[in-house]
Amino acid sequence: MEIAREFARYLVASRLDVVPQSVRHEAVRSVLNWAGCAVGGSRHEAINRALAAIAPISGPAQASVLGRTERTDIAHAALINGMSAHVLDFDDTHLRTLLHPSVPVASALLALAERQPMTGADFLHAFILGIEIECRIANAIYFAHNTDWYVTGTAGVCGAAAATGKSLGLDEGRLACAIGIACAQAAGMREMAGTMTKSFIHGRAAQNGLLAALLAGQGFTSAESALEGKHGFFAVMAQRCDLSQIVSGLGETFEIALNTYKPYACGVVAHPVIEACIRLREAHGVRADDVESITLEVHPKALELAGIKTPPSGLKSKWSLYHSAAVALVDGAAGEHQYTDARVHDPVVATLRGRVVAQPNLQFAEVEARATCRLKDGRSLTQHIDKVIGSSERPMSDRALEEKVAGLCEGILSPQRARALIATCRALPTLAAAGSVARAAVP
Amino acid sequence: MEIAREFARYLVASRLDVVPQSVRHEAVRSVLNWAGCAVGGSRHEAINRALAAIAPISGPAQASVLGRTERTDIAHAALINGMSAHVLDFDDTHLRTLLHPSVPVASALLALAERQPMTGADFLHAFILGIEIECRIANAIYFAHNTDWYVTGTAGVCGAAAATGKSLGLDEGRLACAIGIACAQAAGMREMAGTMTKSFIHGRAAQNGLLAALLAGQGFTSAESALEGKHGFFAVMAQRCDLSQIVSGLGETFEIALNTYKPYACGVVAHPVIEACIRLREAHGVRADDVESITLEVHPKALELAGIKTPPSGLKSKWSLYHSAAVALVDGAAGEHQYTDARVHDPVVATLRGRVVAQPNLQFAEVEARATCRLKDGRSLTQHIDKVIGSSERPMSDRALEEKVAGLCEGILSPQRARALIATCRALPTLAAAGSVARAAVP
Repeated sequence: MEIAREFARYLVASRLDVVPQSVRHEAVRSVLNWAGCAVGGSRHEAINRALAAIAPISGPAQASVLGRTERTDIAHAALINGMSAHVLDFDDTHLRTLLHPSVPVASALLALAERQPMTGADFLHAFILGIEIECRIANAIYFAHNTDWYVTGTAGVCGAAAATGKSLGLDEGRLACAIGIACAQAAGMREMAGTMTKSFIHGRAAQNGLLAALLAGQGFTSAESALEGKHGFFAVMAQRCDLSQIVSGLGETFEIALNTYKPYACGVVAHPVIEACIRLREAHGVRADDVESITLEVHPKALELAGIKTPPSGLKSKWSLYHSAAVALVDGAAGEHQYTDARVHDPVVATLRGRVVAQPNLQFAEVEARATCRLKDGRSLTQHIDKVIGSSERPMSDRALEEKVAGLCEGILSPQRARALIATCRALPTLAAAGSVARAAVP
Repeated sequence: MEIAREFARYLVASRLDVVPQSVRHEAVRSVLNWAGCAVGGSRHEAINRALAAIAPISGPAQASVLGRTERTDIAHAALINGMSAHVLDFDDTHLRTLLHPSVPVASALLALAERQPMTGADFLHAFILGIEIECRIANAIYFAHNTDWYVTGTAGVCGAAAATGKSLGLDEGRLACAIGIACAQAAGMREMAGTMTKSFIHGRAAQNGLLAALLAGQGFTSAESALEGKHGFFAVMAQRCDLSQIVSGLGETFEIALNTYKPYACGVVAHPVIEACIRLREAHGVRADDVESITLEVHPKALELAGIKTPPSGLKSKWSLYHSAAVALVDGAAGEHQYTDARVHDPVVATLRGRVVAQPNLQFAEVEARATCRLKDGRSLTQHIDKVIGSSERPMSDRALEEKVAGLCEGILSPQRARALIATCRALPTLAAAGSVARAAVP
């Protein structure tokens, strides 16, 4: 079985009109959430520094940098927009694998849409397909892979290559090569957590996938056994993998239907704890000063991935259950403003953070948590979250998603332009030019 | 121990005047060999296709594409020159690790030298240091890593980052970050053997290392534990590693002193076999028609890495002991012209290739091989190679290296310009501008 070839065959044969309406609607929601995150992240210092670094080597001003006035070549636009969309850790999550599906695919595809004619429908189609490929690759290796690698950096580059290759009209052989060239760029280890390099890894998945498609479009050759070969992606990048499902049901099921959007601007494993703490605050008026201790019970993976006790920076605090619980209780929120350097060093937050204890609970699901707050007056308050908001079981509503995007645009786009961006994303299925989304996302 | 920080401290403190003269001479030989390979590979179809793919996204014409008239931004020049220098599989080899040391470092550094003032001495200094870093990283993981990954794609990107970061004048903290950003781009699995993507992986090490240094130069942050951390380079990319020597003796020993240059245009593991077959031909006048069978005895790794029996293409034939033995006997040579699609499909070569048998000999060193030729007239001729030409023990002479480079330039540079290129490389230690090497390497 040559998996890249099977994927390529599906990419060529797929037709949008047989994709269920619910799947297409989820794709629109994904693009909207992605665009909001890209605008919201666009003024982060990581983006300023990356733009300064690439300025001297960038190509023609072909594509928009979302949320900003700069324009750059499509490859660098894919990089920067991918970084912006991820830097707040507020983007979407394929919960089964912790992949952030839209960042590689949408960032690469929208940049390409600014250079070549692409209807909104064609964009959505390629977007759905790219996400299908990357999620299937990620499904095959999760969880053997995720403790070491950012799966968005590794599987994601294949999704970006598939989507842009489809949009470039590559034939089956060239699409298979595009996936192979993407595999050869799969990269990004988890040691980079909490540094600017984390968002760089995610943006590179978009840029590198696009480059793979451009190369394949010129007949650049690669190994068709790139995925399943003896020294291929699966063998080299995961301690174990399950290929039994990788190509079964292609065209019948759609991984994007499982996509989820974050109500909170941090690693998804910390979300149940946040909702629990916000509810404790709302229900009982708990104030930081009143708290003796907070005990968190979480799925073991939450501790593994978000176990930083005393984060030194805003970026690191996104991987701290302790900081997340503290800001949730102090601010009643966990948006982009709660994970800044300033908030990390705030004395009230820091003191409360020091009073948080976290424990694994082997009975808990990943979407579950319990927070127990012991107050100085002797009372003990408990809040259990069964299925956190933003999970597959309790998805954010369309309305909530629009409010999230509007919030992310605040101070970057005018309220009027923010509304226009939301409307343009909503209109994607009938847009004459998908590139309109990019042009609506700049000040 | 933070290894990236230790490396950075050394990079900042190092002074060229305490680097032994023999080491500097080896660096000059390395640059000369690299430049010849880049010119010689510059007309390969892989380069044509890569240049076509990047043309629309390339930045300003800042740097030379060696062997060609195109100019491009420094990052893409690093990519393309790195690909050209590797695509013939004729570049240098750090035999202990099979790393190709010059490709990432020289390709990145020379591109940078065309954009910012850099004397030949500064170039050589940064070049020696970049090679030191990548070879030390490779030493720590060989052989646990090499069966899966191209170590030039993984360790090499760190060498390119170190060298260009040094040339950009980065301070210790930023140099450590440059190495971290490089680690996050380490990529390239061996499944790509024999496809254009192999040279792409090697060229990307140069481009990505340069990008890492440019980002770090803007204060872009990364993990200082990138190499030794729990989810860092060594833990993630190698099944086992030995860090006991990684920073010991920095500034006292120089890995570039162990560099070797190929007399034959294929994987180095096939070289002993080639020399044996060429000698059989020279000593006994063996002709293909006379041969009943050829039995090769080789180090087991040679079979592991170059075991392709019937290569389908010129690129694949570089990893075939069988093809290498056949062309060596038929042509008395194994240069760039022996590993073309045409030569692979030549009926005389193909027939002889089918008569070659290869066996591992557990007693043999990597530089050793024995070829036994059974002739149709009943005679049996044997040639044993103890230490192949081009190995550390029998290095190519300066003269032989110049002849190799002159041969690689044939048909691309005029003989006069080829001589000027060789002279410019030889003059590196005293050149006012290292970029002269690039300008001497174009038609």
